[in-house]
Amino acid sequence: MPHIDLDKNLPGIRALMAYSPETAEPLGVLAEILLRSNTGLSPSDRELIGTYVSYLNDCFYCNHSHGEIAVCYLNGDRDLVEAVRRDYKSAPISEKLKSLLQIAGKVQKSGKSVLPEDIENAKQQGATDRDIHDTVLIAAAFCLFNRYVDGLATIAPQDMSSYPLRAQQIVEKGYGNHIFLNPQPI
Amino acid sequence: MPHIDLDKNLPGIRALMAYSPETAEPLGVLAEILLRSNTGLSPSDRELIGTYVSYLNDCFYCNHSHGEIAVCYLNGDRDLVEAVRRDYKSAPISEKLKSLLQIAGKVQKSGKSVLPEDIENAKQQGATDRDIHDTVLIAAAFCLFNRYVDGLATIAPQDMSSYPLRAQQIVEKGYGNHIFLNPQPI
Repeated sequence: MPHIDLDKNLPGIRALMAYSPETAEPLGVLAEILLRSNTGLSPSDRELIGTYVSYLNDCFYCNHSHGEIAVCYLNGDRDLVEAVRRDYKSAPISEKLKSLLQIAGKVQKSGKSVLPEDIENAKQQGATDRDIHDTVLIAAAFCLFNRYVDGLATIAPQDMSSYPLRAQQIVEKGYGNHIFLNPQPI
Repeated sequence: MPHIDLDKNLPGIRALMAYSPETAEPLGVLAEILLRSNTGLSPSDRELIGTYVSYLNDCFYCNHSHGEIAVCYLNGDRDLVEAVRRDYKSAPISEKLKSLLQIAGKVQKSGKSVLPEDIENAKQQGATDRDIHDTVLIAAAFCLFNRYVDGLATIAPQDMSSYPLRAQQIVEKGYGNHIFLNPQPI
Protein backbone atom coordinates (compact mmCIF):
# COMPACT_ATOMS: atom_id res chain seq x y z
CA MET A 1 0.00 0.00 0.00
CA PRO A 2 1.39 3.44 -0.89
CA HIS A 3 2.83 5.46 2.01
CA ILE A 4 0.70 8.51 1.07
CA ASP A 5 -2.81 8.94 -0.33
CA LEU A 6 -2.43 8.29 -4.07
CA ASP A 7 -4.92 7.49 -6.87
CA LYS A 8 -5.35 3.72 -6.62
CA ASN A 9 -6.04 3.41 -10.34
CA LEU A 10 -2.56 4.59 -11.29
CA PRO A 11 0.59 2.46 -10.92
CA GLY A 12 4.18 3.48 -10.16
CA ILE A 13 5.40 6.95 -11.03
CA ARG A 14 2.12 7.78 -12.76
CA ALA A 15 0.35 7.94 -9.38
CA LEU A 16 3.08 10.31 -8.15
CA MET A 17 2.85 12.49 -11.24
CA ALA A 18 -0.90 12.81 -10.78
CA TYR A 19 -0.35 13.66 -7.09
CA SER A 20 2.27 16.30 -7.86
CA PRO A 21 1.76 17.71 -11.38
CA GLU A 22 4.14 20.61 -10.77
CA THR A 23 7.11 18.25 -10.33
CA ALA A 24 5.72 15.83 -12.94
CA GLU A 25 6.33 18.39 -15.65
CA PRO A 26 10.14 18.74 -15.37
CA LEU A 27 10.48 14.98 -14.70
CA GLY A 28 8.51 14.24 -17.88
CA VAL A 29 10.61 16.70 -19.90
CA LEU A 30 13.81 15.14 -18.53
CA ALA A 31 12.63 11.61 -19.41
CA GLU A 32 11.63 12.70 -22.90
CA ILE A 33 15.06 14.26 -23.63
CA LEU A 34 17.14 11.54 -22.01
CA LEU A 35 15.26 8.50 -23.27
CA ARG A 36 13.96 9.48 -26.68
CA SER A 37 16.81 11.52 -28.13
CA ASN A 38 18.40 9.85 -31.14
CA THR A 39 21.68 11.79 -30.98
CA GLY A 40 24.55 9.41 -30.30
CA LEU A 41 22.82 6.71 -28.27
CA SER A 42 19.65 5.22 -29.73
CA PRO A 43 16.37 5.09 -27.80
CA SER A 44 16.90 1.33 -27.30
CA ASP A 45 20.41 1.93 -25.84
CA ARG A 46 18.93 4.55 -23.52
CA GLU A 47 16.09 2.30 -22.34
CA LEU A 48 18.50 -0.60 -21.81
CA ILE A 49 20.65 1.63 -19.56
CA GLY A 50 17.55 2.69 -17.60
CA THR A 51 16.31 -0.88 -17.34
CA TYR A 52 19.70 -2.14 -16.14
CA VAL A 53 19.94 0.53 -13.41
CA SER A 54 16.33 -0.17 -12.33
CA TYR A 55 17.17 -3.88 -12.18
CA LEU A 56 20.22 -3.15 -10.00
CA ASN A 57 18.05 -0.93 -7.77
CA ASP A 58 15.49 -3.75 -7.58
CA CYS A 59 12.67 -1.43 -8.68
CA PHE A 60 10.06 -3.81 -10.09
CA TYR A 61 7.89 -1.16 -11.73
CA CYS A 62 10.69 0.75 -13.52
CA ASN A 63 12.61 -2.41 -14.41
CA HIS A 64 9.60 -3.94 -16.17
CA SER A 65 8.15 -0.71 -17.59
CA HIS A 66 11.40 0.34 -19.22
CA GLY A 67 12.40 -3.22 -20.07
CA GLU A 68 9.21 -3.51 -22.13
CA ILE A 69 9.86 -0.17 -23.82
CA ALA A 70 13.33 -1.48 -24.78
CA VAL A 71 11.65 -4.67 -26.09
CA CYS A 72 9.42 -2.49 -28.32
CA TYR A 73 12.39 -0.62 -29.77
CA LEU A 74 14.17 -3.95 -30.29
CA ASN A 75 11.28 -5.38 -32.33
CA GLY A 76 10.15 -7.75 -29.61
CA ASP A 77 13.55 -9.16 -28.62
CA ARG A 78 12.77 -9.79 -24.95
CA ASP A 79 15.63 -12.29 -24.68
CA LEU A 80 18.14 -9.52 -25.37
CA VAL A 81 16.73 -7.30 -22.63
CA GLU A 82 16.81 -10.23 -20.20
CA ALA A 83 20.41 -11.03 -21.24
CA VAL A 84 21.45 -7.43 -20.44
CA ARG A 85 19.86 -7.65 -17.00
CA ARG A 86 21.40 -11.04 -16.22
CA ASP A 87 24.95 -10.45 -17.51
CA TYR A 88 25.45 -7.63 -19.99
CA LYS A 89 29.08 -8.64 -20.55
CA SER A 90 27.95 -11.83 -22.32
CA ALA A 91 24.89 -10.26 -24.03
CA PRO A 92 24.84 -9.90 -27.84
CA ILE A 93 25.32 -6.10 -27.78
CA SER A 94 28.15 -3.85 -28.99
CA GLU A 95 31.36 -3.47 -26.99
CA LYS A 96 30.57 0.25 -26.83
CA LEU A 97 27.21 -0.37 -25.13
CA LYS A 98 28.86 -2.84 -22.74
CA SER A 99 31.40 -0.15 -21.74
CA LEU A 100 28.56 2.31 -21.11
CA LEU A 101 26.58 -0.22 -19.05
CA GLN A 102 29.74 -0.67 -16.97
CA ILE A 103 29.71 3.10 -16.26
CA ALA A 104 25.96 3.01 -15.54
CA GLY A 105 26.47 0.18 -13.04
CA LYS A 106 29.13 2.25 -11.28
CA VAL A 107 26.85 5.32 -11.16
CA GLN A 108 24.13 3.16 -9.58
CA LYS A 109 26.51 2.58 -6.64
CA SER A 110 27.86 6.15 -6.42
CA GLY A 111 29.24 8.87 -8.65
CA LYS A 112 32.71 8.44 -7.23
CA SER A 113 32.77 4.77 -8.31
CA VAL A 114 33.26 5.85 -11.93
CA LEU A 115 37.01 5.64 -12.54
CA PRO A 116 39.18 7.16 -15.30
CA GLU A 117 39.76 3.62 -16.64
CA ASP A 118 35.99 3.11 -17.08
CA ILE A 119 35.88 6.30 -19.16
CA GLU A 120 39.04 5.38 -21.09
CA ASN A 121 37.56 1.97 -21.90
CA ALA A 122 34.33 3.57 -23.20
CA LYS A 123 36.28 6.02 -25.36
CA GLN A 124 38.36 3.18 -26.80
CA GLN A 125 35.09 1.46 -27.77
CA GLY A 126 33.99 4.58 -29.64
CA ALA A 127 31.91 6.41 -27.00
CA THR A 128 31.87 10.20 -27.36
CA ASP A 129 31.76 12.72 -24.52
CA ARG A 130 28.04 13.12 -25.26
CA ASP A 131 27.46 9.34 -25.00
CA ILE A 132 29.28 9.28 -21.64
CA HIS A 133 27.41 12.34 -20.38
CA ASP A 134 24.06 10.89 -21.36
CA THR A 135 24.87 7.49 -19.84
CA VAL A 136 25.81 9.06 -16.49
CA LEU A 137 22.73 11.29 -16.45
CA ILE A 138 20.36 8.47 -17.48
CA ALA A 139 21.79 6.23 -14.73
CA ALA A 140 21.58 9.08 -12.19
CA ALA A 141 18.00 9.88 -13.27
CA PHE A 142 16.93 6.28 -12.71
CA CYS A 143 18.46 6.48 -9.23
CA LEU A 144 15.92 9.28 -8.72
CA PHE A 145 12.96 7.56 -10.43
CA ASN A 146 13.54 4.21 -8.67
CA ARG A 147 13.76 5.87 -5.24
CA TYR A 148 10.71 8.05 -5.90
CA VAL A 149 8.61 5.02 -6.97
CA ASP A 150 9.71 2.67 -4.18
CA GLY A 151 10.33 5.28 -1.45
CA LEU A 152 6.59 6.06 -1.51
CA ALA A 153 5.63 2.39 -2.00
CA THR A 154 3.63 2.91 -5.19
CA ILE A 155 1.70 0.02 -6.71
CA ALA A 156 3.48 -2.13 -9.32
CA PRO A 157 1.05 -4.23 -11.39
CA GLN A 158 1.81 -7.94 -11.04
CA ASP A 159 -0.15 -8.73 -14.23
CA MET A 160 2.76 -8.65 -16.66
CA SER A 161 0.45 -8.29 -19.68
CA SER A 162 -0.14 -4.64 -18.76
CA TYR A 163 3.48 -3.58 -19.32
CA PRO A 164 3.70 -4.21 -23.10
CA LEU A 165 0.49 -2.21 -23.71
CA ARG A 166 1.88 0.73 -21.81
CA ALA A 167 5.28 0.43 -23.46
CA GLN A 168 3.71 0.68 -26.91
CA GLN A 169 2.00 3.92 -25.89
CA ILE A 170 5.28 5.45 -24.72
CA VAL A 171 7.07 4.41 -27.91
CA GLU A 172 4.31 5.96 -30.02
CA LYS A 173 3.58 9.10 -28.02
CA GLY A 174 6.52 9.78 -25.71
CA TYR A 175 6.87 10.77 -22.08
CA GLY A 176 4.62 13.83 -22.19
CA ASN A 177 2.60 14.30 -19.03
CA HIS A 178 -0.67 13.44 -20.78
CA ILE A 179 0.77 9.93 -21.07
CA PHE A 180 1.58 9.71 -17.37
CA LEU A 181 -1.79 11.03 -16.30
CA ASN A 182 -4.02 9.16 -18.76
CA PRO A 183 -5.48 6.26 -16.73
CA GLN A 184 -5.80 3.94 -19.76
CA PRO A 185 -4.91 1.15 -20.47
CA ILE A 186 -3.23 0.38 -17.11
CA MET B 1 39.94 16.43 -13.87
CA PRO B 2 36.45 16.03 -15.36
CA HIS B 3 35.83 12.83 -17.34
CA ILE B 4 34.53 14.83 -20.36
CA ASP B 5 35.46 18.18 -21.90
CA LEU B 6 33.74 20.77 -19.68
CA ASP B 7 34.20 24.54 -19.21
CA LYS B 8 37.05 24.76 -16.70
CA ASN B 9 35.72 28.03 -15.28
CA LEU B 10 32.54 26.43 -13.99
CA PRO B 11 32.38 24.16 -10.92
CA GLY B 12 30.13 21.20 -10.15
CA ILE B 13 26.73 20.93 -11.78
CA ARG B 14 27.12 24.35 -13.39
CA ALA B 15 29.70 22.95 -15.81
CA LEU B 16 27.28 20.14 -16.70
CA MET B 17 24.38 22.54 -17.18
CA ALA B 18 26.48 24.64 -19.55
CA TYR B 19 27.52 21.47 -21.41
CA SER B 20 23.93 20.22 -21.74
CA PRO B 21 21.49 23.16 -21.62
CA GLU B 22 18.56 21.02 -22.83
CA THR B 23 18.73 18.82 -19.72
CA ALA B 24 19.74 21.80 -17.53
CA GLU B 25 16.32 23.35 -18.04
CA PRO B 26 14.13 20.63 -16.45
CA LEU B 27 16.76 20.04 -13.73
CA GLY B 28 16.70 23.77 -12.88
CA VAL B 29 12.89 23.81 -12.82
CA LEU B 30 12.85 20.73 -10.56
CA ALA B 31 15.36 22.30 -8.14
CA GLU B 32 13.40 25.55 -8.05
CA ILE B 33 10.12 23.80 -7.17
CA LEU B 34 11.59 21.29 -4.71
CA LEU B 35 13.96 23.60 -2.86
CA ARG B 36 12.29 26.99 -2.87
CA SER B 37 8.63 26.13 -2.34
CA ASN B 38 7.31 27.42 0.95
CA THR B 39 4.30 25.08 1.12
CA GLY B 40 4.64 22.77 4.11
CA LEU B 41 8.40 22.46 4.42
CA SER B 42 10.37 25.70 4.52
CA PRO B 43 13.26 26.40 2.13
CA SER B 44 15.70 25.83 5.02
CA ASP B 45 14.13 22.41 5.78
CA ARG B 46 14.42 21.53 2.09
CA GLU B 47 18.06 22.59 1.84
CA LEU B 48 18.90 20.71 5.05
CA ILE B 49 17.42 17.52 3.56
CA GLY B 50 19.43 18.04 0.35
CA THR B 51 22.61 18.80 2.32
CA TYR B 52 22.17 15.72 4.50
CA VAL B 53 21.69 13.40 1.50
CA SER B 54 24.69 14.99 -0.27
CA TYR B 55 26.75 14.47 2.89
CA LEU B 56 25.70 10.78 3.00
CA ASN B 57 26.59 10.45 -0.69
CA ASP B 58 29.96 12.10 0.04
CA CYS B 59 29.42 14.69 -2.70
CA PHE B 60 31.70 17.56 -1.66
CA TYR B 61 30.31 20.11 -4.12
CA CYS B 62 26.59 19.55 -3.38
CA ASN B 63 27.16 19.08 0.35
CA HIS B 64 28.91 22.45 0.69
CA SER B 65 26.86 24.33 -1.92
CA HIS B 66 23.55 23.40 -0.36
CA GLY B 67 24.90 23.52 3.19
CA GLU B 68 25.78 27.18 2.61
CA ILE B 69 22.36 27.89 1.12
CA ALA B 70 20.81 26.40 4.29
CA VAL B 71 23.16 28.60 6.37
CA CYS B 72 21.82 31.66 4.49
CA TYR B 73 18.19 30.73 5.19
CA LEU B 74 19.14 30.07 8.84
CA ASN B 75 20.61 33.56 9.27
CA GLY B 76 24.20 32.35 9.36
CA ASP B 77 23.75 29.42 11.77
CA ARG B 78 26.49 27.20 10.33
CA ASP B 79 26.68 25.20 13.57
CA LEU B 80 23.12 23.98 13.07
CA VAL B 81 23.86 22.75 9.55
CA GLU B 82 26.98 20.97 10.79
CA ALA B 83 24.99 19.42 13.66
CA VAL B 84 22.46 18.00 11.16
CA ARG B 85 25.26 16.46 9.10
CA ARG B 86 27.02 14.99 12.13
CA ASP B 87 24.03 13.61 14.04
CA TYR B 88 20.61 15.05 13.19
CA LYS B 89 18.99 13.13 16.06
CA SER B 90 20.81 15.31 18.60
CA ALA B 91 20.60 18.54 16.54
CA PRO B 92 18.43 21.44 17.81
CA ILE B 93 15.71 20.94 15.17
CA SER B 94 12.04 19.90 15.42
CA GLU B 95 11.04 16.27 15.96
CA LYS B 96 9.12 16.54 12.69
CA LEU B 97 12.24 17.48 10.73
CA LYS B 98 14.17 14.69 12.46
CA SER B 99 11.53 12.19 11.33
CA LEU B 100 11.80 13.48 7.75
CA LEU B 101 15.61 13.32 7.80
CA GLN B 102 15.22 9.69 8.90
CA ILE B 103 13.15 9.04 5.76
CA ALA B 104 15.65 10.97 3.59
CA GLY B 105 18.49 8.86 4.96
CA LYS B 106 16.59 5.69 4.05
CA VAL B 107 15.89 6.98 0.52
CA GLN B 108 19.63 7.66 0.11
CA LYS B 109 20.20 3.90 0.55
CA SER B 110 17.22 2.73 -1.52
CA GLY B 111 13.53 3.40 -1.95
CA LYS B 112 12.64 0.05 -0.43
CA SER B 113 14.45 0.97 2.81
CA VAL B 114 11.60 3.33 3.75
CA LEU B 115 9.35 1.34 6.08
CA PRO B 116 5.74 1.94 7.19
CA GLU B 117 7.05 2.70 10.70
CA ASP B 118 9.24 5.54 9.32
CA ILE B 119 6.14 7.05 7.71
CA GLU B 120 4.01 6.48 10.82
CA ASN B 121 6.64 8.18 12.97
CA ALA B 122 6.71 11.21 10.63
CA LYS B 123 2.91 11.47 10.66
CA GLN B 124 2.90 11.30 14.46
CA GLN B 125 5.32 14.24 14.48
CA GLY B 126 2.91 16.25 12.32
CA ALA B 127 4.22 15.55 8.82
CA THR B 128 1.58 15.72 6.08
CA ASP B 129 1.46 13.55 2.95
CA ARG B 130 2.86 16.53 1.05
CA ASP B 131 5.80 16.87 3.48
CA ILE B 132 6.56 13.15 3.09
CA HIS B 133 6.23 13.31 -0.70
CA ASP B 134 8.54 16.30 -0.92
CA THR B 135 11.10 14.73 1.42
CA VAL B 136 11.27 11.53 -0.65
CA LEU B 137 11.52 13.45 -3.92
CA ILE B 138 14.16 15.89 -2.59
CA ALA B 139 16.25 12.96 -1.30
CA ALA B 140 15.80 11.08 -4.60
CA ALA B 141 16.69 14.22 -6.60
CA PHE B 142 19.94 14.63 -4.66
CA CYS B 143 20.75 11.00 -5.46
CA LEU B 144 20.58 12.18 -9.09
CA PHE B 145 22.46 15.48 -8.61
CA ASN B 146 25.25 13.90 -6.51
CA ARG B 147 25.81 11.10 -9.06
CA TYR B 148 25.72 13.52 -11.99
CA VAL B 149 28.30 15.82 -10.35
CA ASP B 150 30.68 13.08 -9.15
CA GLY B 151 30.03 10.53 -11.93
CA LEU B 152 31.54 12.98 -14.41
CA ALA B 153 34.22 14.13 -11.93
CA THR B 154 33.35 17.83 -12.05
CA ILE B 155 35.54 20.35 -10.24
CA ALA B 156 34.62 21.23 -6.64
CA PRO B 157 36.27 24.47 -5.46
CA GLN B 158 38.47 23.85 -2.41
CA ASP B 159 38.43 27.55 -1.52
CA MET B 160 35.54 27.49 0.93
CA SER B 161 35.02 31.26 0.72
CA SER B 162 33.42 30.82 -2.72
CA TYR B 163 30.43 28.82 -1.43
CA PRO B 164 28.77 31.53 0.70
CA LEU B 165 28.94 34.04 -2.19
CA ARG B 166 27.21 31.59 -4.48
CA ALA B 167 24.66 30.61 -1.83
CA GLN B 168 23.62 34.24 -1.40
CA GLN B 169 22.95 34.46 -5.15
CA ILE B 170 20.74 31.36 -5.10
CA VAL B 171 18.79 32.63 -2.08
CA GLU B 172 18.21 35.96 -3.80
CA LYS B 173 17.58 34.83 -7.37
CA GLY B 174 16.71 31.13 -7.31
CA TYR B 175 17.72 28.14 -9.38
CA GLY B 176 16.92 29.61 -12.79
CA ASN B 177 19.35 28.52 -15.45
CA HIS B 178 20.85 32.00 -15.78
CA ILE B 179 22.19 31.41 -12.27
CA PHE B 180 23.77 28.10 -13.18
CA LEU B 181 25.32 29.44 -16.35
CA ASN B 182 26.52 32.83 -15.12
CA PRO B 183 30.28 32.38 -14.52
CA GLN B 184 30.39 34.96 -11.68
CA PRO B 185 31.38 35.00 -8.86
CA ILE B 186 32.64 31.39 -8.77
